[in-house]
Amino acid sequence: MKPIERFLRETDRVPLMPMPTPLHPMHYQPSGKDVSLLIKRDDMTGVGPGGNKIRSLEFLLGEARSKGASKILAAGPEQSNLCALTAAACAKAGLDCELIINAAEPARKEGNLLLEELLGTKIHFLGPCDGTVRNRRMEELAAAYQSAGEQVYVVRNGATTGRGALGYTAAVVEMKRQCEDLGIGRMTIFAPGGNGGVAAGLIYGNQLMGQPFRIVIVSVEDDRETLTAHIRSTISEAEEITGLPMDVSVEQAAEITDAYRGGGWGENTKESQQAVLSFARSEGIFIENVYTSKVLVGMMDWIEQEKVSGPVCYLHTGGLGSLFAQY
Amino acid sequence: MKPIERFLRETDRVPLMPMPTPLHPMHYQPSGKDVSLLIKRDDMTGVGPGGNKIRSLEFLLGEARSKGASKILAAGPEQSNLCALTAAACAKAGLDCELIINAAEPARKEGNLLLEELLGTKIHFLGPCDGTVRNRRMEELAAAYQSAGEQVYVVRNGATTGRGALGYTAAVVEMKRQCEDLGIGRMTIFAPGGNGGVAAGLIYGNQLMGQPFRIVIVSVEDDRETLTAHIRSTISEAEEITGLPMDVSVEQAAEITDAYRGGGWGENTKESQQAVLSFARSEGIFIENVYTSKVLVGMMDWIEQEKVSGPVCYLHTGGLGSLFAQY
Repeated sequence: MKPIERFLRETDRVPLMPMPTPLHPMHYQPSGKDVSLLIKRDDMTGVGPGGNKIRSLEFLLGEARSKGASKILAAGPEQSNLCALTAAACAKAGLDCELIINAAEPARKEGNLLLEELLGTKIHFLGPCDGTVRNRRMEELAAAYQSAGEQVYVVRNGATTGRGALGYTAAVVEMKRQCEDLGIGRMTIFAPGGNGGVAAGLIYGNQLMGQPFRIVIVSVEDDRETLTAHIRSTISEAEEITGLPMDVSVEQAAEITDAYRGGGWGENTKESQQAVLSFARSEGIFIENVYTSKVLVGMMDWIEQEKVSGPVCYLHTGGLGSLFAQY
Repeated sequence: MKPIERFLRETDRVPLMPMPTPLHPMHYQPSGKDVSLLIKRDDMTGVGPGGNKIRSLEFLLGEARSKGASKILAAGPEQSNLCALTAAACAKAGLDCELIINAAEPARKEGNLLLEELLGTKIHFLGPCDGTVRNRRMEELAAAYQSAGEQVYVVRNGATTGRGALGYTAAVVEMKRQCEDLGIGRMTIFAPGGNGGVAAGLIYGNQLMGQPFRIVIVSVEDDRETLTAHIRSTISEAEEITGLPMDVSVEQAAEITDAYRGGGWGENTKESQQAVLSFARSEGIFIENVYTSKVLVGMMDWIEQEKVSGPVCYLHTGGLGSLFAQY
């Protein structure tokens, strides 16, 4: 057992996922190439509407519980997946959750807001304001509760913190075991890079597990240098938590491309819009426009260009809920 | 290996689900009772928005493919889960699907209609008309395509047919193996009874597998006699397909209750509405009003009344998509 595996086993963690998410072959095939394509179904994490944040929340809520938190706070925009997933995960963990949302309270609750209402989550609607103001208001609320004697735990930065990133460090261990069980050789994993939480966890875990995988991060937002800096910073936080340094640079540990982000976060490209359609029509599985479709475009292009051969794994980070708000 | 297992292994089937769906403990506990509660996650069947119909479609599309079908037809109301799941399953199986929907084409596609649009499914919008008219129009369309030289396969009665029911016959085999692996003793399974497809498959499978489980069907629609007749009729169709008769009556093979259906299909009861909330708040998992909540109410009441002791399994048949249209 590697030191990182021991750390992950011993650190505080709330088990949320019912089992390892499926890893199975894809039908989707690049034209004229004979490559073994797999999909890792992190859309199927089994709490609330699912998705990748559940992995981070296992470690964040573990820390919250170990600190005796009586209240969990999270913040986001009206249809925030992180907010709905935090509320659902807290319900399962038996923790009290409140949300801070930078939008006015709508007359009719839809999508993630409806889920939060069913969960009985208290929501502080701030009205329209930007994310910086919203996050400051969350910290003020945390301080006020703290003064009133509550033990408050704040889920910061959309769960992208050193501890949150451990979710994907643990996912490396899980996938390594799955590949051994299924007899799959050294895979290349394609994953999204937004604010870099998934990427940091994967890269850090892969390095500390002795590089069982090749990792390619497809930026959906920032240029390569900015994204790399985000990842570096989150990995540094993780290293501080575990006491286990990564012995190489981010650039040495993974490949990071910004060639498929188009206009950046939330801006579809012609190719990514097409990818949502062609993927649904070949797999019967839905991806969405902001994250997962750009990763697929990058992955297929790398295969076409023969920058990668099989087995290749597409990490599906979820987002069916947000898909409905994208059309 | 039992004869039914051999039949299921040899008959035509399109594998759609990535793996056995999870079976895991629930947090939800009846007050003052110490019962082991489990949940079978058939909300996580991994194609399209998931849910129980994927099990039926494995066998229906298997039959379609073996008959050389060039076109699959299914029919339903505007937000039909069966229609969206059939379209997604056909995409995965590489089969051409068309849908017949008794509603006018809306200007903006939402929910399941959006998914069908992404899948590129051809939809015949009939405008407002009842289900009988809609189904007749589907048969007329099938005949017209057939005359034009197509090989058409029709998904009838919302996939509740003898062959469709084999999905839950296979689920009994799957759950028996899961219970053996997990060391779970003889479970009582609570499942919904609408038009009786899930119930028929479960009861038939359980009997032919030597009764590994006790089965309780909670009607969400009809009175006990009507539901029992539906189940009997679907089991008869299954017997004809497999050549393996069930040696006892439906009444001997399972318990069927109509005590929790309230005003019938789609009519919430006070208790079922409450169950959606209390379940979300304890599990972080969403159930919906029409099917799954009434089953939960019945199950908890049977436990309270000590009509059943553990281990008890709640079959979650899915429906997150339709939940959003219920509020």
